[in-house]
Amino acid sequence: MPGIDENRIVRLLRDRFQKRNSRLVQGIGDDAAVLRLVGTGSTWAVTTDMLVEDVDFRRSWLTPSQLGYKSLAVNLSDLAAMGAKPGYFTIALGLPPGIRKSWIEAFYRGVSMLADQEGAVLIGGDLSESPGGFLIAVTAIGEITTAQPVLRSGGRTGDRLYVTGILGRAAAGLALLQQGRTAGRTRAQRLALRAHRMPEPRCQVGAWLADKGFAGCMLDLSDGLSRDLPRLCKACEIGAEVSGDDLPVFAASSHWGCDPVTLALHGGEDFELLFAVPAGKTAHLEKSYPSHFPPIHRIGRLRASPGVVWRPRSGMRFRPLLEAGFDHFRK
Amino acid sequence: MPGIDENRIVRLLRDRFQKRNSRLVQGIGDDAAVLRLVGTGSTWAVTTDMLVEDVDFRRSWLTPSQLGYKSLAVNLSDLAAMGAKPGYFTIALGLPPGIRKSWIEAFYRGVSMLADQEGAVLIGGDLSESPGGFLIAVTAIGEITTAQPVLRSGGRTGDRLYVTGILGRAAAGLALLQQGRTAGRTRAQRLALRAHRMPEPRCQVGAWLADKGFAGCMLDLSDGLSRDLPRLCKACEIGAEVSGDDLPVFAASSHWGCDPVTLALHGGEDFELLFAVPAGKTAHLEKSYPSHFPPIHRIGRLRASPGVVWRPRSGMRFRPLLEAGFDHFRK
Repeated sequence: MPGIDENRIVRLLRDRFQKRNSRLVQGIGDDAAVLRLVGTGSTWAVTTDMLVEDVDFRRSWLTPSQLGYKSLAVNLSDLAAMGAKPGYFTIALGLPPGIRKSWIEAFYRGVSMLADQEGAVLIGGDLSESPGGFLIAVTAIGEITTAQPVLRSGGRTGDRLYVTGILGRAAAGLALLQQGRTAGRTRAQRLALRAHRMPEPRCQVGAWLADKGFAGCMLDLSDGLSRDLPRLCKACEIGAEVSGDDLPVFAASSHWGCDPVTLALHGGEDFELLFAVPAGKTAHLEKSYPSHFPPIHRIGRLRASPGVVWRPRSGMRFRPLLEAGFDHFRK
Repeated sequence: MPGIDENRIVRLLRDRFQKRNSRLVQGIGDDAAVLRLVGTGSTWAVTTDMLVEDVDFRRSWLTPSQLGYKSLAVNLSDLAAMGAKPGYFTIALGLPPGIRKSWIEAFYRGVSMLADQEGAVLIGGDLSESPGGFLIAVTAIGEITTAQPVLRSGGRTGDRLYVTGILGRAAAGLALLQQGRTAGRTRAQRLALRAHRMPEPRCQVGAWLADKGFAGCMLDLSDGLSRDLPRLCKACEIGAEVSGDDLPVFAASSHWGCDPVTLALHGGEDFELLFAVPAGKTAHLEKSYPSHFPPIHRIGRLRASPGVVWRPRSGMRFRPLLEAGFDHFRK
């Protein structure tokens, strides 16, 4: 689709629609919009995501239940990136002809598995016929209980960059599926497939980081570090550097022909959190971070000079981190 | 799609997801969900609708701008039916390959035309590639400023039934399009085409009716009176009777081969409001109803015996009103 990319369209919308509205803390361009209700302590984050068959998923690669789970997970992940607690969601579902009731039931079983776990309540939806394949559009609403929401734009020079979990694991699962391996033969393969099919939104971590005031800025990694980190930097009007030594890569993927570092830098759909912490707070963060949470890793820092650079190993020179992530409009 | 209809799926979801939640005033099964924020005077309605190309619209029948307008209109209509004032909305958009930036700009021009008119603010969205055609999923959030939201279920025996505007006009426009007449040659044809392409959500009327306490129950007519009135009755656990004499039909459609009464009873997408008013309040309603609002017509009443009946003319016997409206899963 020459000449159109998602960032440009977001700018177009922001120019057209960004209005002064006393209730709107953050509009288009962050993981979620933030609404503050006047005269109350209530602040809400709202986000929406659409999954299209054969673009965002393949029917043969997920069970209906996994698809239901994932459809909600990607939205809860956006809420997590704002430090918002899952509250309510809607699902608009487009169904191809011939779908059975049992498929629909299994889909919603997967949805409710995650919804129950995270305390989100389905409040409405829409059903449509869809001759071109499955369509799922979820809108999720979460509550922000801290004084300030965690925006993308709150990072400062010198802040340390952290990620939750492991990077490139979902992409390693996708690689297996692309190789026709829909069932994992080893524990690592099963983990990778699960990361791709049923990503765990980091709701608890996001809310905790917001609550404790550690995260100056945050987003969730949906399109890969090499595409998402520049977005964070752009919002902060700042640059960043990443050290390959410190990247939590999914090493086992080398067993099925992947380069773990490439997947960690460029693989999409990890739905881990990327956040920046002021240097003076890192010791406190690392000490107080709950041990039952997924691990966090410090991968680099924000710096004054614009652009995102990285180095494979310490001692090597920093080089530009070129975008090679997932963009619907650049495939 | 044998064995699956929309009402059954809504029941399935209600059974699975309807939970006790102190904030959730009304969940699945009304035009919108209603959330009341504890400790505040704030009550919000949330609704979502998906439009799928070649199911809900044909690209050649609407301009991109009209499609944008209509995508928002059908959602604001759901808010209107709850007496909610438009507040915020998100759009998830699936675009087929080869779409130009000018198409996207025109689409959002149509969206913003209606959004500006009704005071709704776009707060976020998602973009996806969609090989199977255009997809649009809108979620709208509105504020309810009255003590109680107007639900579907608040009707009582003896209440009088009213509708806004004219019934069957959008279906008359659809008939023209199906006949290949995409440009109207008469004023009536242009009105019909406009009703189909750019339905006016009755936000002002809905909010006024809720504010004044006239409407005991309300919904918007999206699938036609013969499908939507039974839904209202079911929610109220009650029946209804409709008098053909009193139906505000779009008589001009007979000039292009339609039966105006059939379209008024069974035609979809009018997005007019259907509401019930206690008999003791009808005189006050009709006297105080603002003259610059679209006209309202009393078309029948709620009655104790279940089922929906109608008679073509006064003096004739009432007969069951059989469903013949629009259902994605019964076409």
